Amino acid sequence: MISNSDLKKYNKKADYSYTFGMFPTFELLKNCPGHVEKVLMHSTISEDVREKVTELCREKGIEVLESSRLIEKLRDKESCLLIGVLDKYEMEIRHDADHIVLVNPSDSGNVGTILRTALGFGIRDIAIIEPAVDIFSPKTIRASMGAMFSMRVQLFPSFDAYRTVYGGERTLYPFMLKATKKLGQVEVGDGHFGLIFGNEATGLDESFLSVGQSVIISHSSDIDSLNLSLATGIAIYEFTRRKFN
Amino acid sequence: MISNSDLKKYNKKADYSYTFGMFPTFELLKNCPGHVEKVLMHSTISEDVREKVTELCREKGIEVLESSRLIEKLRDKESCLLIGVLDKYEMEIRHDADHIVLVNPSDSGNVGTILRTALGFGIRDIAIIEPAVDIFSPKTIRASMGAMFSMRVQLFPSFDAYRTVYGGERTLYPFMLKATKKLGQVEVGDGHFGLIFGNEATGLDESFLSVGQSVIISHSSDIDSLNLSLATGIAIYEFTRRKFN
Repeated sequence: MISNSDLKKYNKKADYSYTFGMFPTFELLKNCPGHVEKVLMHSTISEDVREKVTELCREKGIEVLESSRLIEKLRDKESCLLIGVLDKYEMEIRHDADHIVLVNPSDSGNVGTILRTALGFGIRDIAIIEPAVDIFSPKTIRASMGAMFSMRVQLFPSFDAYRTVYGGERTLYPFMLKATKKLGQVEVGDGHFGLIFGNEATGLDESFLSVGQSVIISHSSDIDSLNLSLATGIAIYEFTRRKFN
Repeated sequence: MISNSDLKKYNKKADYSYTFGMFPTFELLKNCPGHVEKVLMHSTISEDVREKVTELCREKGIEVLESSRLIEKLRDKESCLLIGVLDKYEMEIRHDADHIVLVNPSDSGNVGTILRTALGFGIRDIAIIEPAVDIFSPKTIRASMGAMFSMRVQLFPSFDAYRTVYGGERTLYPFMLKATKKLGQVEVGDGHFGLIFGNEATGLDESFLSVGQSVIISHSSDIDSLNLSLATGIAIYEFTRRKFN
């Protein structure tokens, strides 16, 4: 247990993190109660939220602390009246599932948005190749709207480390501007897939041309490239369209 | 002409705005030179950028001012070494074109990302229904990566004001959770279209069910809704797929 006086502003090196605000905190409580240390509530929170939090925490055996002072010390925005304190935990992606593979993503907002979109289209397993953004930062958690707590996000030290364990059992599709096939021309088979995306600024390097079937989301020459979360969202939509249309 | 001493931190009410950083400033200079008041350069800017800016501005007859003090006063991030000062101008969308219609968008990052994505798929005409985010804020311009300067973005006081002038000549597709058709089932015809999206938090109200053909991007029940810029990007991809695949 972390004592209240030990709780500090979020730090990447700490072994605990926070959910800021109602939406991610409820997702945390519902989906990962075992990783919650405690819940902090501001005295000005509305009565119905107070009741809902109190009941949910009683049910799950989680401590609720009303401390406006502590919330004001930890939060990043004045509007935040509810904070979940959680242990960082390790996750393992499944073999028998489709994957999104993010190589060196550097923007926590992008990664959070990608998690939420992936979950929206039924993909719950995300591989992240380091170096990468801190997946447990409150900013990533918020951008995912708490989707992270219904998913498995596993870190790998290199793409090869991912490929060795998971590459053989699925078709890999690296998304890159030099790719040999357009997204709309890919025939999605029945087996599992892994959709691979590079860093926001640099994309995937040429070595990925020899990984599986490279794909380009072709667009006009008026822009250099699509935003990473947009490209990922469009790709996920296309690869799962049979399920949702 | 605005005198240098009159230049203040960006204000929504001012009749001028700024491009912060190289990418949006170059897009401004290339595509809208007639609206540029002047360009400000920091003394620590790299030699090749300095040359490129100086040459482009000489060609277009635009004043370049080296003033680190002024840049440090105006910029929002320390990394910004180049600022374009531009007059806010009015734009009119075309009749003979596809449109994106954003009803009451409230997040400038979303609007900028949507502009960039639309341009990427060949749509240059955007209607924005007020109240809405400030389209000339440096944050919107930056999120659009300067795409705004190759596009027409027109504000309307109400959806009816848009519909009266532009609704008759195109099929309108409001995107909403209660829609009657799934995106993948829409048959995109040869005529022009208008894709309509609601506010980030509230979406489109039920009155839009009677506007044209309502559409849903169906997804799993694990998330409440897709992020606005993601939903817009996926819709634009689907409606333009014949052109780019």
